[in-house]
Order: sequence, then structure tokens, then C-alpha cells
Amino acid sequence: MVVKLDTAPPRGMKDLLPPEVELRDQASATILTTYKRYGFRRVETPALENLKLLLGSGGGENEKLIYKVLKRGAKLDAATTREEDLADLGLRFDLTVPLARYYAHNRATLPDPFKAIQIGPVWRAERPQKGRFRQFIQCDIDILGVASEIAEIELILATSEALVALGLEQPRIRLNDRRVLSAMASHCGVDAARHGEFFIILDKLDKIGREGVERELREAGYDEGAIGKLFELFLSGDDSPEDRLERLARTVPAAAGAAEGLRTIVQAVAREAGDRTSIEFDPSLVRGMGYYTGPIFEAVYGGGTSAIAGGGRYDRMVGRLLGNDVPACGFSIGFERVVSILEERAGGCGAPRERIAFLFDRDDPMTDVVTSAGGLRSGDRVVSLTLKRKNLAKQLDDLAGEGFGSYSVFRAGSAVEIKPLARRTGGGSDA
Amino acid sequence: MVVKLDTAPPRGMKDLLPPEVELRDQASATILTTYKRYGFRRVETPALENLKLLLGSGGGENEKLIYKVLKRGAKLDAATTREEDLADLGLRFDLTVPLARYYAHNRATLPDPFKAIQIGPVWRAERPQKGRFRQFIQCDIDILGVASEIAEIELILATSEALVALGLEQPRIRLNDRRVLSAMASHCGVDAARHGEFFIILDKLDKIGREGVERELREAGYDEGAIGKLFELFLSGDDSPEDRLERLARTVPAAAGAAEGLRTIVQAVAREAGDRTSIEFDPSLVRGMGYYTGPIFEAVYGGGTSAIAGGGRYDRMVGRLLGNDVPACGFSIGFERVVSILEERAGGCGAPRERIAFLFDRDDPMTDVVTSAGGLRSGDRVVSLTLKRKNLAKQLDDLAGEGFGSYSVFRAGSAVEIKPLARRTGGGSDA
Repeated sequence: MVVKLDTAPPRGMKDLLPPEVELRDQASATILTTYKRYGFRRVETPALENLKLLLGSGGGENEKLIYKVLKRGAKLDAATTREEDLADLGLRFDLTVPLARYYAHNRATLPDPFKAIQIGPVWRAERPQKGRFRQFIQCDIDILGVASEIAEIELILATSEALVALGLEQPRIRLNDRRVLSAMASHCGVDAARHGEFFIILDKLDKIGREGVERELREAGYDEGAIGKLFELFLSGDDSPEDRLERLARTVPAAAGAAEGLRTIVQAVAREAGDRTSIEFDPSLVRGMGYYTGPIFEAVYGGGTSAIAGGGRYDRMVGRLLGNDVPACGFSIGFERVVSILEERAGGCGAPRERIAFLFDRDDPMTDVVTSAGGLRSGDRVVSLTLKRKNLAKQLDDLAGEGFGSYSVFRAGSAVEIKPLARRTGGGSDA
Repeated sequence: MVVKLDTAPPRGMKDLLPPEVELRDQASATILTTYKRYGFRRVETPALENLKLLLGSGGGENEKLIYKVLKRGAKLDAATTREEDLADLGLRFDLTVPLARYYAHNRATLPDPFKAIQIGPVWRAERPQKGRFRQFIQCDIDILGVASEIAEIELILATSEALVALGLEQPRIRLNDRRVLSAMASHCGVDAARHGEFFIILDKLDKIGREGVERELREAGYDEGAIGKLFELFLSGDDSPEDRLERLARTVPAAAGAAEGLRTIVQAVAREAGDRTSIEFDPSLVRGMGYYTGPIFEAVYGGGTSAIAGGGRYDRMVGRLLGNDVPACGFSIGFERVVSILEERAGGCGAPRERIAFLFDRDDPMTDVVTSAGGLRSGDRVVSLTLKRKNLAKQLDDLAGEGFGSYSVFRAGSAVEIKPLARRTGGGSDA
């Protein structure tokens, strides 16, 4: 007796059907074409990294979600076994931490500055929920070795151009700076030690609104003076990003340097891509990762509030590995979110290939069948050998449902005839 | 003090530099284009599978090399801890076992027959050695639902066409059948229980030669009669594959059915691709996987003896999951071997993109720099913003070494001028 095994993929992970892979392949090709035009080049790192690297990398909550790999030949000694003795490798939870290691390791052979594209899976053992998976694709560009805002400008221009090329028109870029956040918090009288907590509440502004943020700040014990100051000074007003930044620099001198950098970014992006994308200064933007040190930014699409891309400057991550800091900055497209937006659109990006089903009988001479089909196959034209079934009408309907546009029936000694396949309504494979 | 971490990738795994990734991307695009023309469509499964699926799947030695993932929240109870309690997921060691699960799980929505392409990493904790890695890419095509030899014929034609398209001209296909091997062993008087061991020795023919095989068979206790019979009947003669198969069918009636199938495959492949590839019947071919049930085959390139692609029929794997068998057959390109052959070739497939380094000064107005560079960027043309260094001559030399073909220097208010970059001998980045 055969004991049947569970055939579902592991919990929180998924199988991709051919149309899903085709949409993804088209989307990644579109993104890569844009990024390459800006001089970025693709690199790859292994899926597994040493756990020592992944832990303490500034990955925040994600470090708790690492899939750890059982050390080979680990001794299960009852007296001494701890988790650290059992695992020394882990699946990467993002592409930034591995890139910093890659740069530190391969620096001698990499160009300076180094402009990298990465596209590949990452793994996080999150509680599965709708639209969130435990294996998912990230698509990052990073510039290492550039301290000036030209890096942020290139990342933002390239990413918004890629989003537009995908059909995600008019992305909105939200921009802030970790140093602005700090100066702002200090100005409101928040102790440096409590900045982290303060930022986490502030980050909720677009979800729970001004009143919600005020309430949470009050509950966390911040005084009314600080809260009032915060909203009065920074979160009010709907003037232009440049005016807001100028006002910020005047009011909070400690933020002046960072604000000047943000103005440069806003000006360059607005002039270069102002008709395709908008850029706004948003002092409530926080971004989750602990490793950011300067400008932070994200892209929002349509009326949505959640980001489809996020990034920032992380000037101190490479230093942890190399001993000396290297300026670094990256922008990561949330590939799964982008794909799900594209999938929701009617029609999708249908593959333009000509697909012919080449039908033959069990009794036809196989060699002749193969030769005849081979003669049709060329360039972008797909020819798929298909055994004829008894109910030809039903089979043709199924083939149309599988995306074949025409068919041909093998007849020994006769010229090949290609006929169109009409797609009946609701016609799909019911195999 | 910063404690520096090891920046090497995990043992047996590797980082890919931009030119390596570009060669791989080109190779996989070439393979995919060919396979799609035959009607195969790409699918994807997660990197992780349930350990229960991977173990006992007929993967032979590879099952011992599985990377197992620590179960989250596993209790390290000193008294009861066994490896099975610690891990329930594993990284896939090939693409065939996951495909069988995928087919069983998604059958209702897949076309019948189902023609799949898979390209992706697999993991095996092998002892690291030159050219062998613990994470490597496999590239498979499989046909599920076709019992006739048309499946083998399509797989062999598509794979050899892909190899030729990669520049690996005149691949040689070696062909055998597990049922021929069994009939042959029985005919020589080998007990069915010892077939496995017998095949393993026979498999070494191309490495240790006839004398080596005879010696090992003798050492394993096979009598001279069996050994003599083996070589006399099957391994001698240099007549055509079809004649050899006919002779086999006459001498060993138990092999007649399988031999007839192989003749069909040989005829069709020879007629359709005889000028681009050769196909030979090789009764010493064994292939390692335990799951094969019928024809087995591999592709050899140039004077080499080791395979660059391998595959066969595995009609009983899906049955383990579904309860009823589904005919299945696959051919897998050893992507890493193919890439290493392509890398050894002088020149390689250089990217034909036009690459321009756009140089600017720290004091140039950033917005104008970005606009000016953006105006040059179009279609396949790469424009990469690059801060001018003090030693311009040296920098231009480095840029040429990084693959830039020309450069332009920003000058406010002037028209953009593009100048060619001459590559000096030995010029490369020494950053």
C-alpha cells in the first residue's frame, strides 16, 4: 500500500504556475533593463550565510525570523546542547546584509563606486497571512562608495523609472532623513535614549492619523508640550517640500545639514522626473531597519499608503565587516507587492509568442511527426507536440484555454496546415 | 573596537561577480528561448520542502546530503531530542522530486501533458572540491503525462538544440534503458538482488576501461562466464546503434521491448538532428538516480567523458504522492559545468551594450549633472554617473578595465561630448 504524502508546499510558501512565472519574468526583465541603463550590474550571493553575520547586523525584528540550518554532524549531547551548537548557517532575511559582506570580501575586484543589482529570494519565518509569504523575492539596487546625494538621486530616479516601465504610473516618493528625525526628537525634548520608541509611534501617522499618534505619545508618557511642538512645527503645512525643508533648517539648526541634502535630492528628482513621479518631504517617515544612517525613502503607488519600495543610506554597515566605514545607499522594490498589483489588473501582460499545438496519432510514424513539427518551429514560434485525443473538439477547446492560438494535425505525406483555435467562453482545462 | 567578522561566503558556496552573472544570465536566456519554442513553460517551487518528501524519494546518496532546517521553537529536551525532532524542512537537493510534488498538488490546473522548465538553485552538503559547490544551479525540462517515446525524443532534441545554441557544438547523446540493463544482467546470470551492485561497476567503463571493469567484477565474485558473456554480447562491436539494438533484441528476448523503444528514439533524433548532434546506444550507461524506470540518457561534449546533461524516465515517482502512477520523463542540464566550459573560452560572450561613464566634479550642480546624463541614456545605452578623480588618466584606464567603451565629462552650459575610451594593455581596476 502506498502511504500518500502531503503534496502542499511547506506552510507559508508557494508553488508558481506557468502564467505566474511568466508575469514575474517579464516584470524582472523590465526592472533589470532599466537598472542596467543606469550602469548597475547584477551580482549574486548564496542563499545561506554564516549565522554570525546575520545576527547583530541591524536587521531588527527580522533577525528573530531567521531559518537556521542544522549543523552537519552536530552532537546532540544531552548535557550541553544549545541552539548555537546546533546551527551555524542561516537563510538570508534580506539582500542588504549579504551585499555588505560581498562588498567587504570582493572589494579588490569590484569597481569603485560599486553599483549593484540583486534580485532573488529571501526567507523569513513570519506568521503566514494573506499576501505575506515565508519565501519572497526582493529586488535591490545599491551604490557603495558614494557619500554625496548623487547616490540617492540615482537610486530614486532609476527605481521610479523602473516602476513606471512596469506600468505603475506616477509613483510618489516619500523622503526623510534619520538625522532629521533625531534632531526633531531632541528639539521636542525627547531624550536621545528614547528616540527609537518615539520614531516607532511617529511611523504610524499614515495608519492611525494625527489623533492616534498624539494619544499613543501621551500614553507613552510624553508631555503635551513635546507633542504640541512636534505637530506644530513639522507635521503641519502643505507648502512645497523645498519650503518645508527650509523652514525646518531655520527652526532646528541641528537638522540644517541633513535638510540641505534632502533639498538637493528633491530638486534634482523633481527636475529630472517631475512629470513621471512626485517627491515629497515627510518628516514622519521612519523605515524599520536599524541600520539606516542618513536619508531614507520609499515609493507609494496610487492611493495606497503602504510602500512598494523602500530604502536609505547605511554608511556604517560595511565598517562592521571591513573595520572602516564605506558610504552605502540602497533602494529595494517589494517585488511580491508589485507582482500582486500587476496580477490584479485585467488581462495581464500576455506573452506575444505564437503558440501552435501540433497534434498526432498514436499510430503516426514518430520520426515523421517530429520532423514535420520541427519544420514549423522557428524564432519566437512555439510548437508543442500533442497526442490527439478521442474528443478532438473538447481537446481543441482545452488547448485554446492553455493559451495555444492555433493548431495543426499531422497527415503523412501532406503539407502542414495551420488552423486558428477559437477560444470558447469559459473554455479552460478541466483535466 | 570593531571585531571583524569573516567575510567569505559559507564553505563550499560562492559569490558571483558581475561578469560571471552576465555570462550566466545570457546562458540561461539562450536555454529558455530554445525550450519555450518546444512548448515548455517555466514553473517554480520553494527552495524548502518538507523533509518527509525529500527522504525516501529515490534520490540515492543525495538524500544524505540534505541541509535540514531547525524547527522553530523545537524543544531541546535533553532526554528525547533526536534529529527528527529538530528539523522538519530541508533545502531541495534536485528539481525532480519537488516537481513530482508540484505536479501532484497542482494537477487540476496544469495542462495535460504538462511540459515544465525549471531553472534554480539546489543544495547538497558535499565535501567541497574544485568545481563542485554546495549551492548550484540545475536547469531541467520534464514532460509529465506522456508514456510514449515522443517524450524522450522531444527532451533530447530540445536539450541538444539548447546546447548547440550555447555554442557547445555537436553534443553526443548516450542512450540506454534501465530495463535493458536488468535484462542484460539477468542474461549474464546475475541475481536480481545484485543488479544494483553490478550496474555500479558497469557504470565505470568509461573511467577504468574494460579491463578495470572485468577486474572489479571478478573481485566482487562474479564468475568468468558472466563477465565474458557481458563483453562478448553487448560491449563489443562498433556497428550502428540501430544494428546493436536489433542484435540485443534477438539475443536477449527480455530486452526486446525496451530495445524497440530505444530504436524509435535513435531514429527520430538522428533524422531530425543528425547534422547537429550524434546519438549512440551505450549499454554500459547507468545514471545514478534510483528513481529511473525506462530510457536513460546523457549528453557529452567534445572529447570529454563526463556528462553535461543527464536524464531519464521516472514513471513511478508521482505515484508515491498521488496514489496512481503518471508517466514522467526529464532531462537536466548541468548548468555549472556548462558555464565553466563557456568561461574557459577566450573572450566569452561580451555584453554588446554601449557603456558610457559620465564624469562630473564635486562642485558641479547636481541637478544639471543628472539631467545631462539622463539625456544620453536610452534604449540599450548605459550611462553611469561617476565622480571625477584627481588622476583622470588613471581613472579613464580603470573605467576601460571595467568595461566602459566611452566617457563624457560634464561641462555646465556646453553640449555633451562623448569620447572613446582606449583600453590599455593590462588595464584593470586596481582599487
